[in-house]
Amino acid sequence: MSTDTAATATDTPAPSAYARTDRTTPTRSRERASYDKEFVHGILDEGYLCHLGFVRDGAPVVLPTLYARVDERLYVHGSTGAWALREASETDPGMPVCLTVTHVDGIVLARSGFHHSINYRSVVVHGLARQVTDPGERLTALDALTDSVVPGRADDSRRGNAKELAATAVLRLDLEEVSAKSRTGGPNDEPEDLGLPYWSGVLPVAPAYGTPVPSEDLAPGIPVPDYLTAR
Amino acid sequence: MSTDTAATATDTPAPSAYARTDRTTPTRSRERASYDKEFVHGILDEGYLCHLGFVRDGAPVVLPTLYARVDERLYVHGSTGAWALREASETDPGMPVCLTVTHVDGIVLARSGFHHSINYRSVVVHGLARQVTDPGERLTALDALTDSVVPGRADDSRRGNAKELAATAVLRLDLEEVSAKSRTGGPNDEPEDLGLPYWSGVLPVAPAYGTPVPSEDLAPGIPVPDYLTAR
Repeated sequence: MSTDTAATATDTPAPSAYARTDRTTPTRSRERASYDKEFVHGILDEGYLCHLGFVRDGAPVVLPTLYARVDERLYVHGSTGAWALREASETDPGMPVCLTVTHVDGIVLARSGFHHSINYRSVVVHGLARQVTDPGERLTALDALTDSVVPGRADDSRRGNAKELAATAVLRLDLEEVSAKSRTGGPNDEPEDLGLPYWSGVLPVAPAYGTPVPSEDLAPGIPVPDYLTAR
Repeated sequence: MSTDTAATATDTPAPSAYARTDRTTPTRSRERASYDKEFVHGILDEGYLCHLGFVRDGAPVVLPTLYARVDERLYVHGSTGAWALREASETDPGMPVCLTVTHVDGIVLARSGFHHSINYRSVVVHGLARQVTDPGERLTALDALTDSVVPGRADDSRRGNAKELAATAVLRLDLEEVSAKSRTGGPNDEPEDLGLPYWSGVLPVAPAYGTPVPSEDLAPGIPVPDYLTAR
């Protein structure tokens, strides 16, 4: 997995990499950073849960929430009564946020405690979260949020009615100031540690989906949909 | 799973629940919040990756990092050269942080898009991250960090030498302002939606561990340790 594809930007109409900024340039392990759009999109599209950070009364707050990507925009949603969604709606031009997505791929066991590590892929997005008011964009975002968690589900469920839509706030965060970071491969032990009597290697980790559990009130004859069994 | 055990605090010497504060009291879905120490500890001890939020130049930053719990303290660590660790070390009495841990247990598919949800357990800790300078506490924290990811590994690896310890900063965050939030169970559909022709239920999710992959340079005769195969 290349972590240095930013340097290979070609002359395609749309730039293939996000512009690097001070806060997306790590002070350490720069070889683990990437600004390649395809790599970033891949990480974002594989997940559905992010950790969204904002500042409240001068202190940081980090909350787990669902997200979805549509082209170069991320969407999150929530109750119109939630503090962060109200704040973002009332702040012009938006509320400063940091949205982070992390996938753990493996646990790296080195001979030394110091070189233990995690194989991971993460994306950090900085920007302003703005309320989405356009009705069409709101519907697109809500469908994307449903399909982000279970691809294909938006078309196979009842869409929001007027009351539900009125209770739901949608925020948009443009993909402008973005970086990915990743680690792959085995442990990087010190040469003098290679003879130590400790096992070393990688324990792979990935999310696993169990057998779908139907609702107790599910009507008979409704099969488990293909988009669940395929997972 | 009870989410309201805070109300069952008994007269044991140590209070069994964290004191509720303004920022650990949700404005919505209060029935999903818990301040019960045992419940909080269980969520923290099941994981090893948190999302740590702090404020830099007035904007939020959220980064994934490892953590470990020792009694009523959480520890994180990193390079002495990393911005956040330097900042926390140089700020008296510490750097305001928010440390969040989230476990996804299932995807909840309702008949309506609006009632789709996630079964999850999360812990949010607010407080000041302070540098740990006591040599004994630093060693305890580093062992706990190794064992948090792979229980039993600290005793089965080479511990840090003077050079490695000098390059490692350890931060402590006391468990004082803490809350858990969780959702369990099936979808909460509207009564009028029960007859819709959509499957509803829960798709269970959990992390799965694969077959350990030994390092290419692993000496022959070193077996995969029990603490990995047990996983």
